[in-house]
Amino acid sequence: MSLAHKGLPFDRNRVSFKEIPKLENGYSAKVPIIRDEDKLIADSFAIALYLEDRYPDRPSLFKGEGGRAMARFVEGWSQMIIHPFINVVILMPVHDLLDTPNQAYFRESREKIFGRTLEDVAATRDAKREAFTASLEPIRKTLLSQPFIGGESPLFADYIVFGAFQWVRVLTSYKLFDAGDPVQDWFERCLDLHGGVAREIKAAA
Amino acid sequence: MSLAHKGLPFDRNRVSFKEIPKLENGYSAKVPIIRDEDKLIADSFAIALYLEDRYPDRPSLFKGEGGRAMARFVEGWSQMIIHPFINVVILMPVHDLLDTPNQAYFRESREKIFGRTLEDVAATRDAKREAFTASLEPIRKTLLSQPFIGGESPLFADYIVFGAFQWVRVLTSYKLFDAGDPVQDWFERCLDLHGGVAREIKAAA
Repeated sequence: MSLAHKGLPFDRNRVSFKEIPKLENGYSAKVPIIRDEDKLIADSFAIALYLEDRYPDRPSLFKGEGGRAMARFVEGWSQMIIHPFINVVILMPVHDLLDTPNQAYFRESREKIFGRTLEDVAATRDAKREAFTASLEPIRKTLLSQPFIGGESPLFADYIVFGAFQWVRVLTSYKLFDAGDPVQDWFERCLDLHGGVAREIKAAA
Repeated sequence: MSLAHKGLPFDRNRVSFKEIPKLENGYSAKVPIIRDEDKLIADSFAIALYLEDRYPDRPSLFKGEGGRAMARFVEGWSQMIIHPFINVVILMPVHDLLDTPNQAYFRESREKIFGRTLEDVAATRDAKREAFTASLEPIRKTLLSQPFIGGESPLFADYIVFGAFQWVRVLTSYKLFDAGDPVQDWFERCLDLHGGVAREIKAAA
């Protein structure tokens, strides 16, 4: 989304979990990684900062110093509030689409993090949904004043939250939002951005 | 804090709850209200926006369009996460310092909001503290990258959160933060801002 926001052309490469540590000669243990000519950058926020500084004449991802600083707050909020629930929702769907060696890696590494079996973690999903829905209230409050977290148009802060919801859309048929939730409307607006680049990736059936 | 940030001189007026609806010929049912020459503005966020647009050459409260937009997110987060707990913490201290007519007004209006007695609400304080402490994680994550929510220096978003904690400092001796919490360090930095204007208001014993 940050690359599309900047209007930069890019190729995407599909990789499996076990291939990640070998990418770009072991540059990073995690994706995303981008290569811009001979420059490598890993981590979504670092990538956004790099793109902003490298391509200052293209549409801004932060719109000023204040936006750059507060995107960190949105990132922290997203990591604390959005990711734990999203990780539960996508856990078995991710597992199920992997091949056998990647399934083994995924199960071992995730069960170590959670301290429980994947199945036990996934079983908490429906019980956690109501608290998750309530926790989106800061987005709803923001959307009372403006169509995007970034204001009249989206900024990197929108993509931080959008990316987590996109995982769910692409990997599962689970309904994250209740009918009429303004967060769903915002999510649909994000899917329409930049020529619908995020909608090109098909939703799971 | 917004006035001090802009370096504008101001007088403060102490008012009781029951006087608020009479202020400035009934201009607003709630404080804060500011008068700038013949212009009246109520609501902290509206005041910050007014000051930013009226005094653009003084230090910015938002540092750009992105900061202005995302301050709405911090406001929504603060209203949802910070205010409910702070309201519980300050409930009886506020009640106890009021005179009899204001106590009656306060009890009636607050018990209507809570649907319970003031005493029942206040009794939930200690049980709620641990979840409150955990909920501050987005601030802690932000402070890993920068000393203020606004970045290298504070912005209105800092004052949104600071204001709620300042109520507790001024009204109670309750310890909001655990020892060594980076949020406490940030709060102390805020108290030092603008010549220590917020520290001038004495902490409760």
